[in-house]
Amino acid sequence: MPGPIQSIERAAAVLRLLAGAGQGLGVVDIGNALGLPKTTAHGIVRTLVDVGFVVQDPDGDYRAAPDLADLGRPRIDANDLRARAVNWADSLASRTGESVRLATLAEGRALVVHHVFRPDDSAQELRTGLSLPAHACALGKVLLASAPVRPRGRLVAMTARTVVDPAALRRTLAAVREQGWALEVEELEAGVAGIAAPVRDLGGLVVGAIGIDGDSERLVDARGRPRAGLVPAVRQAARSISRGLGARDG
Amino acid sequence: MPGPIQSIERAAAVLRLLAGAGQGLGVVDIGNALGLPKTTAHGIVRTLVDVGFVVQDPDGDYRAAPDLADLGRPRIDANDLRARAVNWADSLASRTGESVRLATLAEGRALVVHHVFRPDDSAQELRTGLSLPAHACALGKVLLASAPVRPRGRLVAMTARTVVDPAALRRTLAAVREQGWALEVEELEAGVAGIAAPVRDLGGLVVGAIGIDGDSERLVDARGRPRAGLVPAVRQAARSISRGLGARDG
Repeated sequence: MPGPIQSIERAAAVLRLLAGAGQGLGVVDIGNALGLPKTTAHGIVRTLVDVGFVVQDPDGDYRAAPDLADLGRPRIDANDLRARAVNWADSLASRTGESVRLATLAEGRALVVHHVFRPDDSAQELRTGLSLPAHACALGKVLLASAPVRPRGRLVAMTARTVVDPAALRRTLAAVREQGWALEVEELEAGVAGIAAPVRDLGGLVVGAIGIDGDSERLVDARGRPRAGLVPAVRQAARSISRGLGARDG
Repeated sequence: MPGPIQSIERAAAVLRLLAGAGQGLGVVDIGNALGLPKTTAHGIVRTLVDVGFVVQDPDGDYRAAPDLADLGRPRIDANDLRARAVNWADSLASRTGESVRLATLAEGRALVVHHVFRPDDSAQELRTGLSLPAHACALGKVLLASAPVRPRGRLVAMTARTVVDPAALRRTLAAVREQGWALEVEELEAGVAGIAAPVRDLGGLVVGAIGIDGDSERLVDARGRPRAGLVPAVRQAARSISRGLGARDG
């Protein structure tokens, strides 16, 4: 088992110091209080600003964030996520020729928060606001794979291919975590397949999924494997959005 | 300038995850949510428990600490500190033959929270509860050296040797930070000297000072330097108490 992590101990001490100071403190003050060189104190407090636990005054001093009590609120909401994703979603649609959807987990289902039409002038229905059964789509599998709360209730069969056995779903989600992307072939709707990858926030928390969906004949080969280039394109879009949110590649 | 610190980013993400989960989560859940191996997730969450930001349920699951909103409260109070220090204070008194005091900073003054008599059967007055002008004693210098808030108001001369010039005090405090201990010779009371060192909490925050005080002729030589062995004894006691609080040597 690994030992305690010194930088986290120091960050916690900085947070307590700022929360208790009753006034803004500078990097030198923080370094003095913890017995750290100024550059070390600066690295810690800047990271605490990045993660939203500390704010910097206009005069340069640092304070504990006023909404620290409300930590359970996500750092970014669906609107922020869409705003950060919109260009990458467009470019993923152009690159693959498929429609693109961005989803978050809401009450155990995959909520589509952004939808880019397939770039072929065909008649398509805007799917933003649609809530999909998570176990039956690639977006949902990505979201469930990282969700700490297991899906509750019976897994409903949307097609003959929907995974409805909880043990089989658990194995699928483990594979999704392992490989970093999810595939769905005609599990939600006959003739349609999807490929999705996770969007991660600063610190690695999964805050959404982005993916393509379209005719299963275009997305997978005769053996049900994704056609060349599609998985890398989806993963690259997901990584680019994640990077914009401050996540590291990993 | 150093870049952002990954372990702090991850710790913040774990804290947000736990605060938002609405139920206790296990290490595997946390690892899945952040895309981390179980051992890495374990190291992060255990450190968050150590620093008091996360609590572990009786069933082993982790939750955000219910008093996270109250971060400004010190992790340990004067009673905890005294309880952790009492044996080391006794042994410092035996080892040096001098009286020992433990102090915390309270409203800019050094508040004596524990006092061990000089082990020589002489008549002595219990000093616990006494509040000393911080700029004029070794305990206070140690506390001021790490305090982010500068002493306010005029520096009062207790003797002819008290440092009352703010710039001179600043230089003294910088030297105290640098060397890790403080000396005071007849600055508080004629004929008395003191030597003190900082007690640090987990993360390095200074939460108190421990020191000896006694006849200046016993504590310092003719050139005003601490007699051999005294500074190491004081520092060792301070380090031992700090270690008991979870601080690392540094």
